[in-house]
Amino acid sequence: MQWVKVLGGVVGAAALLGLGIIVGHFAIPKGADSPAPSASASQDLDLEILKTVIEQLDANRIRENLRELSKEPHLATSPRDEALVQLLLQRWQDPESGLDSARTTEYEVLLSFPSEEQPNRVDVVNSTGAILFSCRHSEENLTGEQGGPNVVPPYAAYAPPGTPQGPLVYANQGSEEDFKELQNKGVKLQDSIVLTRYGGVGRGAKAVNAAKYGVIGVLVYTDPKDINDGKSLPNETFPHSWCLPPSGVERGSYFEYFGDPLTPYLPAMPSSFRLNSDNASGFPPIPIQPIGFEDAQVLLCQVNVSVHNRLELRNSSNVLGIIRGAVEPDRYVLYGNHRDSWVHGAVDPSTGTAVLLELSRVLGTLLKKGTWRPRRSIVFASWGAEEFGLIGSTEFTEEFFSKLQERAVAYINVDISVFANATLRVQGTPPIQSVVFSAAKQISAPGSSGLSIYDNWIRYYNRSSSVYGLVPSVGTLGAGSDYAPFIHFLGISSMDIAYTYDRSKTSARIYPTYHTAFDTFDYVNKFLDPGFTSHQAVARTAGSVLLRLSDSLFLPLNVSDYSETLRSFLQAAENLRVPLEQHNISLGPLVTAVEKFEGAATSLNQRIATLQKGTSDPLQVRMINDQLMLLERTFLNSQAFPEERYYSHVLWAPRTGSVATFPGLSNAYSQAESTGHEPAAWAEVQRQLSIVVAALEGAAATLRPVADL
Amino acid sequence: MQWVKVLGGVVGAAALLGLGIIVGHFAIPKGADSPAPSASASQDLDLEILKTVIEQLDANRIRENLRELSKEPHLATSPRDEALVQLLLQRWQDPESGLDSARTTEYEVLLSFPSEEQPNRVDVVNSTGAILFSCRHSEENLTGEQGGPNVVPPYAAYAPPGTPQGPLVYANQGSEEDFKELQNKGVKLQDSIVLTRYGGVGRGAKAVNAAKYGVIGVLVYTDPKDINDGKSLPNETFPHSWCLPPSGVERGSYFEYFGDPLTPYLPAMPSSFRLNSDNASGFPPIPIQPIGFEDAQVLLCQVNVSVHNRLELRNSSNVLGIIRGAVEPDRYVLYGNHRDSWVHGAVDPSTGTAVLLELSRVLGTLLKKGTWRPRRSIVFASWGAEEFGLIGSTEFTEEFFSKLQERAVAYINVDISVFANATLRVQGTPPIQSVVFSAAKQISAPGSSGLSIYDNWIRYYNRSSSVYGLVPSVGTLGAGSDYAPFIHFLGISSMDIAYTYDRSKTSARIYPTYHTAFDTFDYVNKFLDPGFTSHQAVARTAGSVLLRLSDSLFLPLNVSDYSETLRSFLQAAENLRVPLEQHNISLGPLVTAVEKFEGAATSLNQRIATLQKGTSDPLQVRMINDQLMLLERTFLNSQAFPEERYYSHVLWAPRTGSVATFPGLSNAYSQAESTGHEPAAWAEVQRQLSIVVAALEGAAATLRPVADL
Repeated sequence: MQWVKVLGGVVGAAALLGLGIIVGHFAIPKGADSPAPSASASQDLDLEILKTVIEQLDANRIRENLRELSKEPHLATSPRDEALVQLLLQRWQDPESGLDSARTTEYEVLLSFPSEEQPNRVDVVNSTGAILFSCRHSEENLTGEQGGPNVVPPYAAYAPPGTPQGPLVYANQGSEEDFKELQNKGVKLQDSIVLTRYGGVGRGAKAVNAAKYGVIGVLVYTDPKDINDGKSLPNETFPHSWCLPPSGVERGSYFEYFGDPLTPYLPAMPSSFRLNSDNASGFPPIPIQPIGFEDAQVLLCQVNVSVHNRLELRNSSNVLGIIRGAVEPDRYVLYGNHRDSWVHGAVDPSTGTAVLLELSRVLGTLLKKGTWRPRRSIVFASWGAEEFGLIGSTEFTEEFFSKLQERAVAYINVDISVFANATLRVQGTPPIQSVVFSAAKQISAPGSSGLSIYDNWIRYYNRSSSVYGLVPSVGTLGAGSDYAPFIHFLGISSMDIAYTYDRSKTSARIYPTYHTAFDTFDYVNKFLDPGFTSHQAVARTAGSVLLRLSDSLFLPLNVSDYSETLRSFLQAAENLRVPLEQHNISLGPLVTAVEKFEGAATSLNQRIATLQKGTSDPLQVRMINDQLMLLERTFLNSQAFPEERYYSHVLWAPRTGSVATFPGLSNAYSQAESTGHEPAAWAEVQRQLSIVVAALEGAAATLRPVADL
Repeated sequence: MQWVKVLGGVVGAAALLGLGIIVGHFAIPKGADSPAPSASASQDLDLEILKTVIEQLDANRIRENLRELSKEPHLATSPRDEALVQLLLQRWQDPESGLDSARTTEYEVLLSFPSEEQPNRVDVVNSTGAILFSCRHSEENLTGEQGGPNVVPPYAAYAPPGTPQGPLVYANQGSEEDFKELQNKGVKLQDSIVLTRYGGVGRGAKAVNAAKYGVIGVLVYTDPKDINDGKSLPNETFPHSWCLPPSGVERGSYFEYFGDPLTPYLPAMPSSFRLNSDNASGFPPIPIQPIGFEDAQVLLCQVNVSVHNRLELRNSSNVLGIIRGAVEPDRYVLYGNHRDSWVHGAVDPSTGTAVLLELSRVLGTLLKKGTWRPRRSIVFASWGAEEFGLIGSTEFTEEFFSKLQERAVAYINVDISVFANATLRVQGTPPIQSVVFSAAKQISAPGSSGLSIYDNWIRYYNRSSSVYGLVPSVGTLGAGSDYAPFIHFLGISSMDIAYTYDRSKTSARIYPTYHTAFDTFDYVNKFLDPGFTSHQAVARTAGSVLLRLSDSLFLPLNVSDYSETLRSFLQAAENLRVPLEQHNISLGPLVTAVEKFEGAATSLNQRIATLQKGTSDPLQVRMINDQLMLLERTFLNSQAFPEERYYSHVLWAPRTGSVATFPGLSNAYSQAESTGHEPAAWAEVQRQLSIVVAALEGAAATLRPVADL
């Protein structure tokens, strides 16, 4: 899981996480070895098959998957990463439990690694340059797994090389506000090194913000208060508890965008046009290095930071596995997770991949037995180089842009599948809410409560819906994992599914060993989910969602559930009515557009309900399903956010403005407010409003009866 | 027909024309009055119905349509334009011969008109400013139809107001080369007025080019050599022949882009964000005024040009009429033409609208009788304000972007339906070639030759196809009429159909009275097509194409016909191989991509042929048809041409480079050559090449069997 721009998720801190893998490309042998049960065009979801799948998803097999997957470090493009590509291929080509086909494809992408010859260093020096203290170059080898040549030393991927030296200044989280405050207090930032703690803003943003004040180097550490609920002593941290040991250092990508940095909007084929890396944007402007809290607490005075990271073109693989649909093979339900990790990556991403492999095994077995074949095609994906910036998945969406835009029904992401054992946590766009609820109601929660996953979930995360009353709250999608290119670039309804924390018991920013050498199999097996029942719960939930999406006659995407989002955005916009009217900007057309959307969505649901009562003409079902599948696409506007690479979804683009309304409107409004009311800034507010109105009107138009124009 | 950027059509000068109308929005009364013949999902095109339609298309009714349509001037948004909106509505709502539904929608768009109070003037003055000679303010009233308040005086729409005065310089066609040559000859251009003739470059380009040399005003006249095969005397021109009289002046839009100038990419709803007209781009930078050749020949010395054009927001209507599809109502075959004219507009656009009304009458009658209903929906459209820049059609594509992108099968444009009586002329993208050929082979050409339209056509315009041998040549689509937003912005396979000249008999740039007050009913009835048999031929051809697209089980779009285009572009690119390799740019990936496309298209055609032999599963047919329908979409790339408003089709964007290859590659190559080999310019060549490769690879991917990924 990658931790970049996170966009105000309902679920708070848990929303800040993600995982990574590599990209492929398949041809299904036509019919060949897989017996196709005679498919009926009007066949609906088979509840018996669904029950069978849920029952067969096995916690112990998930544990054994995880043991294998996390046995060795598997940094993107490393030999072990490539070995796991082969493992996935073998599983998906297994004659007893494999899929219809599996293959890999490679992209040549720009990654960033620390130099093996010149380790990155952080030293305290005196005025003559003599070293008084040096930070660790690697984490302490506490369990025998933190050493060895395959454990990449802590570093900030994509940080530029350099050896800045200067006085150390503590800059809190390195946010814009933090630096402003330091400046206001008269602290000299020019030519300083700042020490920041993880959290608050994205990794790369700390360097971007710092550089604006003349800072020449940045250190980032993990604060025990943020990650360990305050615990910091060796005997109260891993391997004695799930807490991060004093030497643990969070690695991560400091690239501000996602996708291969040299080939934006183009698949990173060897022959593709590449930016010169000097012209690539989104890298930190100054050297930056992460350290552990053990070292952070002793730093003071003059500090010398030596960063020797190198950029390298590497071949990164995705693995794709396909089950051909029996009735509508040209409709794709995608299910993916990344494969690459920073070190062993037991939690991130292998808890997700362990679930993925168990789910594909169960479905593959039914397929090979001839018991079942889905109505629509299912595509399993193991993405490469996610940790460096969702690279494998992004290149995949670039390569297959047209095909996916025409045919993808939904994308299911299961990156870290288990953060903790308390409750389900789902992020996604509104149309996926209903299918997730249906799945969660049908499955028992782990533990002895006797509750369904749904009833357990509602105890931890809930909201009051004007339509449904009290329901579990589904969070929004930022850019923390591989769903980002699917939702923001392609407009494919997406979701991310996991089990997570009881927030009354921990305020950890994320599970403590995140992106460190301590994220190992034993950590999961001992502290995170000893019985693997949370893993199983996620497998069952995600599996049920997958089967419902692939096999239901009518797609279980409730487009009407977008209305609540639109109402909430509209309500927030209403707070701006007076200042907007002062600049001759009317909210009237927005109100009308939201009403039209609601009306069209409600009518469509009524038509579906009527059709479901009768016998179904396959073409009529297909036409309705096309309306449902393509709704999310109608919210894309490639003109809306010219500065935001890949972001084109007018409802879910990054919101930096303070008003919780449509992101373009919110951002433009904040900008207009802050620029002292320049006419051009208010024109942009009006433009953003018109873009949203046009998108909603266009969306409503696609939901109306298809012969209306 | 509008005459803007024209992009190297095969058909030469005839490719330079187009027509204009207004935009609507419909709801079909569900089933209501129209008896739906029991529709079979596997019903193919009914050849008897096709024969009936062709037989019933009546030349005399087309004549009477034209008489009514061209009775009075109907400039965009004028009262007569609005009266024609009502006429179209009445026809399409007729209980005996109407469609399922018809309605209008309005857009508020920025048009440009001459001032009624202060006529634009062109005067020859002496050194004291005294007027020695004045150009006519209007055309001579030769037939009683050239006078009256509704005849808009000649003007250059969107030319800025101003009263420049200076020495007159003749600047040929006002091309970049023309001005360079004048400068090289030492002619002083600074502060001059230039006299240019129509042709060579677009209207607005003459002012843009002139302004770069300090020119302060531009006159444009129609040269008898270009338009009248040299004839210029009153007794050899209209009303004595089809030639342009000495006082005739070509009006036109001088806007460089298309669509409403204030709302690019947004529908021009009253509430939409509008640019301030000072910030709008694409208007001529200096005053410009068109004049007749009668005046042009006497101009000399010092000239004063007074332009008093005003910009005005006006409501412009489209009219849409719909026939609901019986089996796949969510697939739209669009057929349109503009309605607005500069004056009476008998040829431009009423010859097209007269055909449109006859075709909709024949189909409407069959529909109301219960004899027929198409498989797919048919949308007839009468666009507004085309003459000002394809405004009605462009706003329509902006308003219904998502819906059209998802569902439009093809767009058929019949603007000027008859330029002359010699032969059919078709412009379009390759997938429409086969359906046009099928239609043209089946219909007799007008006259006594006994040939089919196809066999007659091949005598005038032909090419040697590597696949088919000698075939009629289909021209390419520029931006001369309302097909432009459909093909360039939305990627919908489009075509423009007309009857045109025998080029051995005239070299007229276009029919001589184009955009003048002499373009009247009598002109058509006497000179252009006295028997209206060419009109009928176009009606039959376009009607057959429409019916084949709406009723065929498998869409008659032959995607394989793109291969010849790709091969020809590739062959042209091969000429650049050596210089490209000198800059480390390889054509290898392009060659591979073209080969992949060819292979995938050929295989798809084989699959279709196999399926056509058996009984057809409706869903299987639908899946194939989706591949065919959406192929054109796969060539769009919104990142490819950031400077070119609306242009996103990587095969048909404007080509300014001299090499007849992919436009992005050609343009970037010419730029790199001319900039003295700057690295950034060669990087852009590589980028454009990668964009084409990615598009072709993506296109091939969508043509492969749908379960291949």
